[in-house]
Amino acid sequence: MSSIFGKNLKIAVFGQSHSRAIGCVIDTLPAGIKIDISRLNAFMARRAPGNKSYSTSRKEADLPEFLSGVLPAKDDPNALVTCGAPLCAVIFNSDARSADYSDIFDIPRPGHADFTANVAYGSFQDVRGGGHFSGRLTAPVCIAGGICKQYLEDRGIFIGAHISRIGDLIDCPFDVDGVEIDRARLEAAAKGPFPTLDEDCGKKMISLIESCRANKDSVGGCIECAVIGLEAGVGAPMCDGLENRLSASLFAIPAVKGVEFGKGFEVCGLYGSQNNDPYCIKDGKITAKTNNAGGILGGISNGMPIIFKCAFKPTPTIMQPQQSVSLSQKKETTLLPKGRHDPCILPRAVPVVEAVTAITLTDMLLEFPKHIPHETM
Amino acid sequence: MSSIFGKNLKIAVFGQSHSRAIGCVIDTLPAGIKIDISRLNAFMARRAPGNKSYSTSRKEADLPEFLSGVLPAKDDPNALVTCGAPLCAVIFNSDARSADYSDIFDIPRPGHADFTANVAYGSFQDVRGGGHFSGRLTAPVCIAGGICKQYLEDRGIFIGAHISRIGDLIDCPFDVDGVEIDRARLEAAAKGPFPTLDEDCGKKMISLIESCRANKDSVGGCIECAVIGLEAGVGAPMCDGLENRLSASLFAIPAVKGVEFGKGFEVCGLYGSQNNDPYCIKDGKITAKTNNAGGILGGISNGMPIIFKCAFKPTPTIMQPQQSVSLSQKKETTLLPKGRHDPCILPRAVPVVEAVTAITLTDMLLEFPKHIPHETM
Amino acid sequence: MSSIFGKNLKIAVFGQSHSRAIGCVIDTLPAGIKIDISRLNAFMARRAPGNKSYSTSRKEADLPEFLSGVLPAKDDPNALVTCGAPLCAVIFNSDARSADYSDIFDIPRPGHADFTANVAYGSFQDVRGGGHFSGRLTAPVCIAGGICKQYLEDRGIFIGAHISRIGDLIDCPFDVDGVEIDRARLEAAAKGPFPTLDEDCGKKMISLIESCRANKDSVGGCIECAVIGLEAGVGAPMCDGLENRLSASLFAIPAVKGVEFGKGFEVCGLYGSQNNDPYCIKDGKITAKTNNAGGILGGISNGMPIIFKCAFKPTPTIMQPQQSVSLSQKKETTLLPKGRHDPCILPRAVPVVEAVTAITLTDMLLEFPKHIPHETM
Amino acid sequence: MSSIFGKNLKIAVFGQSHSRAIGCVIDTLPAGIKIDISRLNAFMARRAPGNKSYSTSRKEADLPEFLSGVLPAKDDPNALVTCGAPLCAVIFNSDARSADYSDIFDIPRPGHADFTANVAYGSFQDVRGGGHFSGRLTAPVCIAGGICKQYLEDRGIFIGAHISRIGDLIDCPFDVDGVEIDRARLEAAAKGPFPTLDEDCGKKMISLIESCRANKDSVGGCIECAVIGLEAGVGAPMCDGLENRLSASLFAIPAVKGVEFGKGFEVCGLYGSQNNDPYCIKDGKITAKTNNAGGILGGISNGMPIIFKCAFKPTPTIMQPQQSVSLSQKKETTLLPKGRHDPCILPRAVPVVEAVTAITLTDMLLEFPKHIPHETM
Repeated sequence: MSSIFGKNLKIAVFGQSHSRAIGCVIDTLPAGIKIDISRLNAFMARRAPGNKSYSTSRKEADLPEFLSGVLPAKDDPNALVTCGAPLCAVIFNSDARSADYSDIFDIPRPGHADFTANVAYGSFQDVRGGGHFSGRLTAPVCIAGGICKQYLEDRGIFIGAHISRIGDLIDCPFDVDGVEIDRARLEAAAKGPFPTLDEDCGKKMISLIESCRANKDSVGGCIECAVIGLEAGVGAPMCDGLENRLSASLFAIPAVKGVEFGKGFEVCGLYGSQNNDPYCIKDGKITAKTNNAGGILGGISNGMPIIFKCAFKPTPTIMQPQQSVSLSQKKETTLLPKGRHDPCILPRAVPVVEAVTAITLTDMLLEFPKHIPHETM
Repeated sequence: MSSIFGKNLKIAVFGQSHSRAIGCVIDTLPAGIKIDISRLNAFMARRAPGNKSYSTSRKEADLPEFLSGVLPAKDDPNALVTCGAPLCAVIFNSDARSADYSDIFDIPRPGHADFTANVAYGSFQDVRGGGHFSGRLTAPVCIAGGICKQYLEDRGIFIGAHISRIGDLIDCPFDVDGVEIDRARLEAAAKGPFPTLDEDCGKKMISLIESCRANKDSVGGCIECAVIGLEAGVGAPMCDGLENRLSASLFAIPAVKGVEFGKGFEVCGLYGSQNNDPYCIKDGKITAKTNNAGGILGGISNGMPIIFKCAFKPTPTIMQPQQSVSLSQKKETTLLPKGRHDPCILPRAVPVVEAVTAITLTDMLLEFPKHIPHETM
Repeated sequence: MSSIFGKNLKIAVFGQSHSRAIGCVIDTLPAGIKIDISRLNAFMARRAPGNKSYSTSRKEADLPEFLSGVLPAKDDPNALVTCGAPLCAVIFNSDARSADYSDIFDIPRPGHADFTANVAYGSFQDVRGGGHFSGRLTAPVCIAGGICKQYLEDRGIFIGAHISRIGDLIDCPFDVDGVEIDRARLEAAAKGPFPTLDEDCGKKMISLIESCRANKDSVGGCIECAVIGLEAGVGAPMCDGLENRLSASLFAIPAVKGVEFGKGFEVCGLYGSQNNDPYCIKDGKITAKTNNAGGILGGISNGMPIIFKCAFKPTPTIMQPQQSVSLSQKKETTLLPKGRHDPCILPRAVPVVEAVTAITLTDMLLEFPKHIPHETM
Repeated sequence: MSSIFGKNLKIAVFGQSHSRAIGCVIDTLPAGIKIDISRLNAFMARRAPGNKSYSTSRKEADLPEFLSGVLPAKDDPNALVTCGAPLCAVIFNSDARSADYSDIFDIPRPGHADFTANVAYGSFQDVRGGGHFSGRLTAPVCIAGGICKQYLEDRGIFIGAHISRIGDLIDCPFDVDGVEIDRARLEAAAKGPFPTLDEDCGKKMISLIESCRANKDSVGGCIECAVIGLEAGVGAPMCDGLENRLSASLFAIPAVKGVEFGKGFEVCGLYGSQNNDPYCIKDGKITAKTNNAGGILGGISNGMPIIFKCAFKPTPTIMQPQQSVSLSQKKETTLLPKGRHDPCILPRAVPVVEAVTAITLTDMLLEFPKHIPHETM
């Protein structure tokens, strides 16, 4: 499947940067899920390009229109309810400037997929604005993810992410040695001007991004995400565990080049006596003293917060001349800068990480329980 | 799918650490693939537990027996040829000592899946030796992967991995700033006493592992893998790219907690002008001057080597008392050390990383080309 | 997957009878497929409700609008070309009269899915016009199928169906004892006023349908379909053969209650010496003297025409009072007739059978060849 | 997937007629399912070739050996319990006489898959005894199906089939105009000497089969199957309904050429007023007065018995010379009779139909409920 997420819940994403519309179909969505439109639009707004100094100048309202799969909620004029039929939601593209991209068909932009798309799809590909490879396609991912996020929150499962690093600036990380994640602080980060846990760090990151724009450059970073309230027992060993499924989905976000869970790559330098999380009893419940495992053992949740990080490469588009080649002439040439871009994609990527996580967990929760309760035997 | 790899090529892995046998079924395997038995057994031997100082004392020959899907090669007494029917290969378990594991049903071992398996499968689970969660299940993965590896090598695609780190010891990394990977050195590492590129570093790692055993502890590390010779154009954007598929498979290996491609998490600290790989012409072919992307752009191979790393946590089994809980009594208790273990799983995990990579790439290569050639229009 | 066809080519169908739009997403469609818009619209017109005496009075132009996945063909103003990204096409619903259906939420219509949908989706279901269960959803199936049909025809594979039976009226069947299918006659049937091979039979069928309308009743029938030009070797034994895949897709058409291949249920009364198709050489090519197998042996095509039949039950909506129950009051009641309907769905179902067949065969043709050619060994 | 059944529950079938073993892997099987070995062996015995006059002389005990996925039941020495890990069961082939089949590689047997397999798999195929296309592969299907059948029976769902026709002989059919299926009579048929509801009819069928053997011929027939006790609400519209899934699985049985539900092809000749099943209240429960729909509306069960029929073609192997071709010489030739065969496969196919039905229904029951109960909103 090229652009279909999921196994029990299937989400087909469609559209190109400059096609008439972009959107998604959510198939096998249970009936009876309530969608609060204000909450969904607020979630979409976190991803939308805006007037912010650190973001692209492309302007799109990016509010979803629902073509199928929902009915008005009987008790709430601001809500829809899924009816069990596949849900289709679209966003019509309005502010597309195709002329900006005329050269890249022949001269691939370094760091972008222009060259590999050319090999795979030949001259048939829609190269305008990156086509189907564009970060713009994360908008329909956020529609689906925003709906799943509401579904999970209504069931007590909260997903929150923050920027943990841009360049050399580090936001305060989740305390994986401890056990608690501060949900209120994550919610504040989502509502604030910049999605960091530490406001001062956020200001420094804004400055860094602005200086990147001034330098006609871009910068990479890292997003850390937590899932709070997921019950123990979700996942499976080998091919169908939380790590398999979440990583497969997270790499669907353009620019992600690494995914790690719990201590992640730090485990390479640890001893077993340091890394094993000792079990304990707390408030009468079995839990662990530390959460180096990021809430996952054998692919299955252990009831502690799920914690992971994604590395984002710097936006490939930079406003500097770059060395490339002419595909038609097979000779080296210089690519001149053009178009609009985000010097740092991370602020807008935070809700995308949450969306992809919500999609994946909803999919996994729609699985039949692994064991047949005793009483039915 | 709990334990089925793949989409075009489906590989079902079965068995528990102490079940009568472990094995795999390879479904939709093309007919006509030659399997050299000596090469396969040599590959399996790299994973097998042995007499080495740094490995478990469990002894299993671990040679596959073929139940279906193959016929003798007509021209080679040492080879089999696939006939197009599903291939089943098994390894009978001979040296299982179930008594060693009697306690863990009630007292979960920290860092292992005992607790999460108990939540998911209840009292029905086969807890002996870790059951289906055991690293022993990587043996049938290596049967399937070894066959895929031969298939790929016969088509000019080579997969080679090495230990790039154990504890604080670092093997010389692939030169991602350059472009070439030294295949001969990788092959030598596979044949040598310890799978590092730098022999001296390997010796130090052996010492470190031996000191871990002496300290009744274990240690984590990192494996770096390269795919050489993969043509450009393999993969897809969004959900079906090389990064999605490889990461989903790599996290099927027990103990993997992070996967990164190319520069990986290093990209968080880079500028676009540093991270973009400038295109150039070399020997009349379009390529790039650096390989920060690890050979993948937009989920699709660009013809350069695919490079990635996996973080392995230290083996959870350590020969020290650890703090745990009694599940039946819901009270804290101490788990006393028992059984056999590898103080460091990495030497045996190197072929497993190669196997999983071979399975995933073979699966992806069995996809229909993305574009219909011009001439058929 | 509730409403997703296919394995290599995934087609997600969405919409309800009275939702804002209905449509489909075609994922993993190869790039470079030409879509002739006139041909597609002509195909859609065969399914569209019209002014015909034997059809519903609901009027919808039912022309697809493309939201993504295509670019204008460079050489043909009337054509589009797929670009490799998921294609989304929609039809906006314009002539929906929801008021007609107010009762059926409580009093299920016999023969319809109202009752079973109520059990499965509860009060959340969109009951208007049959919701997602409506025959209207075959319109997006025809968009996808019409595109696949062009793809196949451009490759020499022709799909043609006709009404072989309505009530007791029998159109002249394909000659399965012979080998040839008259493609020209099938094409004429598709273009003519009524899709039968024998024009006189068609006229009698129209009379029968009109008398059904006069009697406030409906009538069932049978559609026979042939695939001409499919090469030998397509399909697989057991779960992935032509019969498995075609039947699974054909039962997606509302009202289909039976599917049979070749001689179908007639084989129950035959001896092996009658039913086996003897091989012979014709024009230097291996073929068979008869085609009782309908072109399929062991799930795999043998190069002869694929032949199958689908039984369609009479439209459940009839303009007579029917016995039903009130779901809320759990008591028997009479359902009074309402709304619009087709007294016989078969004329409009013929292109739907062709569409579903085209979707399934395109999907199967996008499979990697089963054997690696000798020369690559 | 070539030989993998299912979506939630995946069953990979492997083996060739003359391979070392045949078997199956059941993946994603819930933990805690009890397998009574005597019941399973009794079920397998219904399919096994025996000493009966109407069956092949090949003799195989065909008792499964379990390699993984089960533990001994704690309370029952004759039972196993699934542990949640993939279950692998095998049957070693003992009575294979490969020499019998030496010719068919070059001279394809009419009605068999020899020719199509040759096109698809080339010279690599295992042609001995029909390879993976052999009816022998229904033995592992019966292992998986027998386990699923016990799972369903323990939950109150009974599956029973009988031979409804051989040649011109008709067993008394299920009364689809009524509503009740006589389970006791179906169970008696399963235990008796011949699987018909009417014992006299069974005797006539045995005579017919014996006369076929004497005539060196074979004969086709029909199996009718009922599912009693399946709750309403199982299935889905369009691609994932009971008819889609059951038909896809039933065509996996070699020799099946048609599948019909409820009235099946009879609906072609019915009016809506005849075919619609009027709803009524019986014992305080909503049901219908007739069951023409075979228990399925809109792909979803309505709580009445599921009823369907499968047409089986006559065994292609007959002991007469048949006209065929030499593939190597591309010329017509006569195929001389050889080997062992069943002159009528139907008696042994009855449990196979039940097995495939049990596999499919278990798979569908492992689906998450389609709607979220009110109380969770």
